[in-house]
Amino acid sequence: MSTETSTTATQRSFADVYAEVNQFYARQMYLLDCGRVEEWVQTFTEDGVFDPPSAPEPIQGRDRLIVGARRAVAELAGTGEQRRHLLLSIDVEQQAGETLQIRSYAQVIGTPRGGDPVLRLICVTHDLLVREGRALKVRHRRVTRDGME
Amino acid sequence: MSTETSTTATQRSFADVYAEVNQFYARQMYLLDCGRVEEWVQTFTEDGVFDPPSAPEPIQGRDRLIVGARRAVAELAGTGEQRRHLLLSIDVEQQAGETLQIRSYAQVIGTPRGGDPVLRLICVTHDLLVREGRALKVRHRRVTRDGME
Amino acid sequence: MSTETSTTATQRSFADVYAEVNQFYARQMYLLDCGRVEEWVQTFTEDGVFDPPSAPEPIQGRDRLIVGARRAVAELAGTGEQRRHLLLSIDVEQQAGETLQIRSYAQVIGTPRGGDPVLRLICVTHDLLVREGRALKVRHRRVTRDGME
Repeated sequence: MSTETSTTATQRSFADVYAEVNQFYARQMYLLDCGRVEEWVQTFTEDGVFDPPSAPEPIQGRDRLIVGARRAVAELAGTGEQRRHLLLSIDVEQQAGETLQIRSYAQVIGTPRGGDPVLRLICVTHDLLVREGRALKVRHRRVTRDGME
Repeated sequence: MSTETSTTATQRSFADVYAEVNQFYARQMYLLDCGRVEEWVQTFTEDGVFDPPSAPEPIQGRDRLIVGARRAVAELAGTGEQRRHLLLSIDVEQQAGETLQIRSYAQVIGTPRGGDPVLRLICVTHDLLVREGRALKVRHRRVTRDGME
Repeated sequence: MSTETSTTATQRSFADVYAEVNQFYARQMYLLDCGRVEEWVQTFTEDGVFDPPSAPEPIQGRDRLIVGARRAVAELAGTGEQRRHLLLSIDVEQQAGETLQIRSYAQVIGTPRGGDPVLRLICVTHDLLVREGRALKVRHRRVTRDGME
């Protein structure tokens, strides 16, 4: 919005943005996989939307996002399975006003205690990322799951 | 070829090229996985060669590449399986004249309708990429499949 | 240490480092997967430490690292299985003096001769990378395996 922001945007190369986005997802997914949901939810904007294949309707806002994440973490803890989310094959499209449109393939892998890893899900993730200060945040995330009927 | 091209090449850092190559593969594979073969074939040079483990001999030229891709897409559509190609662990070697020698690990994952994802293939991909205008194109692709006897 | 090194460090952007680290792992893992252990061990510092989940205690120094790697390569050759190590979802934290703290998810995939690929292990890799001349080297690597009891 401000002149300073525009200047910064102009100076950021595609390589800068691409590295930043890859790093963002590596950290965001790690926080979720560790059950650090308070930190994870901060990677969304305050009014961020998460539209996953598993929910009947999109979940909006950090307050609701964290409730869902806590429940998912508790359920997994009960099963003893370690989940890992990997966002890979990341396609970054820079848009006006430093908004980023991202598409990626997500692998969800689960390893039961004492067991072998299992590829649980392949999803396509469509994110709208915005910049708040120096940090990227998810404003909108839509996830589709392969194989869903 | 021109002085301008050489200048551009000199100015492009490894980070620029690395990001560009990762982005190129994310998009190229997505086009294939969506069955958008007309756009996918444009990611090869006009005389591009694809030497996959499944073909008796290398396939050369967009006209032939698109025939093979259309057949593969139609066969998959018949089975109802969603395929995803992920080119990962990308090794980029810059060569003279802006040619890039790329080696990567490719995962091919398939998800049957209503089913769980299956890791179908692990391949090693050896690509020769060239620049046409601003875009990267595959001039030559050789793929070997792990486990092949 | 020298003024020159500090200057270089200051000039290297996050994008530069991120690309370099991704490239480093792609090559390092490929060397291991090809059984090129003499080259692979050079990606560690002379006194580098590898602390894997499979060893009773950390392995220190190239001389010992290469013994372990040769044994692992020989065992795999006996089974006829092709292993691939993919370090993905890479999180890079730049520290003082050009040291890099890296966390990543590692997938270990094995394909038996004539068989289908199997996701053998999911690990979390914690690396301390340092710069020797222009090259990155692993000074310390700690790997934890998901599902371990």
